[in-house]
Amino acid sequence: MSLTNASPADAAKAAKSASLVLSTLSAAARNEALDAIHAGLTAARDDILAANARDLALAQAAAADGTLSQSLVARLDLSRKGKWEDMLKGILDVRDLDDPVGRVTLRTRLDDGLDLERVTCPIGVLLIIFEARPEVIANIAALAVKSGNAAILKGGKESTESFVAIATVISAALARSAVPNAAIQLVTTRDVIPQLLALDHDIDLVIPRGSNDLVRYIKNNTRIPVLGHADGLCAAYLDPSVDATLAAGVIFDSKTGYPAACNSLETLLVHEAALSTHLPTIATALAVKGVELRCDPQSKAALSDTPNLTLLDAVESDYTTEFLSLTLAIKTVSSVSEAITHINTFGSHHTDLILTGSTDQAEQFMSAVDSAGVMWNASTRFVDGTRYGFGTEVGISTNKIHSRGPVGLEGLMIYKYKVRGRGQVATSYGEGEGQKRYLHEKLALD
Amino acid sequence: MSLTNASPADAAKAAKSASLVLSTLSAAARNEALDAIHAGLTAARDDILAANARDLALAQAAAADGTLSQSLVARLDLSRKGKWEDMLKGILDVRDLDDPVGRVTLRTRLDDGLDLERVTCPIGVLLIIFEARPEVIANIAALAVKSGNAAILKGGKESTESFVAIATVISAALARSAVPNAAIQLVTTRDVIPQLLALDHDIDLVIPRGSNDLVRYIKNNTRIPVLGHADGLCAAYLDPSVDATLAAGVIFDSKTGYPAACNSLETLLVHEAALSTHLPTIATALAVKGVELRCDPQSKAALSDTPNLTLLDAVESDYTTEFLSLTLAIKTVSSVSEAITHINTFGSHHTDLILTGSTDQAEQFMSAVDSAGVMWNASTRFVDGTRYGFGTEVGISTNKIHSRGPVGLEGLMIYKYKVRGRGQVATSYGEGEGQKRYLHEKLALD
Repeated sequence: MSLTNASPADAAKAAKSASLVLSTLSAAARNEALDAIHAGLTAARDDILAANARDLALAQAAAADGTLSQSLVARLDLSRKGKWEDMLKGILDVRDLDDPVGRVTLRTRLDDGLDLERVTCPIGVLLIIFEARPEVIANIAALAVKSGNAAILKGGKESTESFVAIATVISAALARSAVPNAAIQLVTTRDVIPQLLALDHDIDLVIPRGSNDLVRYIKNNTRIPVLGHADGLCAAYLDPSVDATLAAGVIFDSKTGYPAACNSLETLLVHEAALSTHLPTIATALAVKGVELRCDPQSKAALSDTPNLTLLDAVESDYTTEFLSLTLAIKTVSSVSEAITHINTFGSHHTDLILTGSTDQAEQFMSAVDSAGVMWNASTRFVDGTRYGFGTEVGISTNKIHSRGPVGLEGLMIYKYKVRGRGQVATSYGEGEGQKRYLHEKLALD
Repeated sequence: MSLTNASPADAAKAAKSASLVLSTLSAAARNEALDAIHAGLTAARDDILAANARDLALAQAAAADGTLSQSLVARLDLSRKGKWEDMLKGILDVRDLDDPVGRVTLRTRLDDGLDLERVTCPIGVLLIIFEARPEVIANIAALAVKSGNAAILKGGKESTESFVAIATVISAALARSAVPNAAIQLVTTRDVIPQLLALDHDIDLVIPRGSNDLVRYIKNNTRIPVLGHADGLCAAYLDPSVDATLAAGVIFDSKTGYPAACNSLETLLVHEAALSTHLPTIATALAVKGVELRCDPQSKAALSDTPNLTLLDAVESDYTTEFLSLTLAIKTVSSVSEAITHINTFGSHHTDLILTGSTDQAEQFMSAVDSAGVMWNASTRFVDGTRYGFGTEVGISTNKIHSRGPVGLEGLMIYKYKVRGRGQVATSYGEGEGQKRYLHEKLALD
């Protein structure tokens, strides 16, 4: 890793060159670099925490002035219980994942002595733009090295001292490894994001990790592909055929488990036949956490006799709002089809849920809803790379190409085709007289 | 298919709605639509060829004026031997490909009764922008229907009558099928490309089929992902360890098989030790077709005694020029590493070739060259979806995400994650006391 004050263009060019070396290193060489990073960080614990304390002091002063939020201050703090240990363990976890580089995913014999192979390889140069959390830098450096990608990191200014301390250690560790130093670069100069976003020749993929506003800004200001999601406007459809207690449990978890998360529930679409049979049970469950319900007239009427609820009249914009808080918009529908249309029209294509006792209806919903995740009688909160068993998560994507849903290491890979021959030429093959035919024989992958 | 004079925005919105229906149709329903298109076109042969003849007459007049190229006129002509039959056979070929929709590519048991599945599904709405060739419209309609994607087609104006005639037939055929009419739309209004390229909310992928200029224009003018390549600047590295006759055969085919193709050879990098031993044999082979050689001083000197060559002095720009003609730029290098660096710096990441007798060197080259296709002792001209055995080809991509190299139906697909549960909630799982652990058990794919 280098701490660069180079121009963004020079940093990107250096990262591209480094990526070409990194992409050819063996798994062992990349894993050794991860070990070196882990050892370096372990040894430098006190220095890094001291740097983090300086960031924290400045942030706390800013929070006292009201110019910084308390939640950001909390995210900054590397000395919080378990955070340092989690950061270090994360590096070893990434090291121990299956190697994503060089996997053969297709092998075809075109003719005797002429074989085609599709092999996974790194994408190239990643630009990771993130906000305050200082542990992200170690996490991303590990993912980049493991996947054979170079990375340019641009973090939020509140963590500058922490970032520089960690980057210095990583840089020294990489210097003892086969990974080129410029493969991981921390850009500390300010206001360079627009310049970085213009470097589509050398940067292959942008991964924003932060607020919806950050993601939306980036998506609107670059030609480089962006992996991520701006919105997580998740909806549930409630069918009368489902058990009311089951539905209440799933909705409670989806809404209240972590309301600020992108996979939290924001809209509940209730079948009219479930208004009196199911909705009161659900609303009562949500009331325990004080969830505010913004209802259309029908659902509000259905809840009029239920005690202890916070009921408001919904306005149209409530159905397109990602509340990220203990608020749920409720709307009555007359069929699963109407729910599907609502979700495909107003949703964010992130994660949507059906609560139903009918397999056919569930399959219809999961087929027709155009979202990265479709859940049947299970919480939307399961949508997460770790929970899905991917070992790690780069982010959750609502893109329609490349990677969708929780993205693990696989999302940082592309492939190339290798053809090994013995002098064969294309004009020898075809349907004409005297021409050879292709075999197109599928070969085992290993 | 509808022949739309709707605004681009309305056309895209209608395509999006139609795509949501199309994506849920069974393989049988999609294949039936392809049969109906095939039958409709077969029955309407005379009308379509008459319309094509009218386009052709106008084009021939324009060619006589010098305002249109003769090669474009040739590409327009549907009555050329075999072209009509190929177009019809292509529809049945696409029908008979394996269904790309609904393939399960990952299945994980998160817990008993809580299963995760990754299932392929269509991307959504494709915008296909192409030039004169009228048969492309039938080909693309077939690919879109087969893959469950809606498509908006914008063709070159020279083929308007042919397009309209074919679109009318396809429209009538789709009306007898389960595929919504708006799933395939031909936009015939003029100058709408900039408007279409702005519709990133409803259009998910742009596929330009045409000249490099067209592709470059599109890549520079849209936020929608573009699948394709602007340049095919393919290079070969010639090592002295390879058999000279083998090398001459492969280079001859790569350069002269179809010089206007994107997978044709443009640059030859010769190891200095092969200048006297190999280059004269190769140059003599190329001279049969009159290939013009643009040489650096060393390679020119090496060829000074070889008769019948067309030798020119290379200028720097020759090594970054896609000639698309019988011209080859030759440069001397002192190692395979220098060749790799040249290719990664000046190439187009499309297809590159190594001619060597050394397995180690070949593997080094194929690992380090950052291109969609890397060939060892086999012609660059093999890079093609049909030759690779993909059944069809949407185009060749130099993108670093999603699809790279020749793109078959697979490149028109994305996936979604389906989770089927029985009321499980995320807060029940974790490392804490009393919490359940995830199983993360890999299940068989079928």
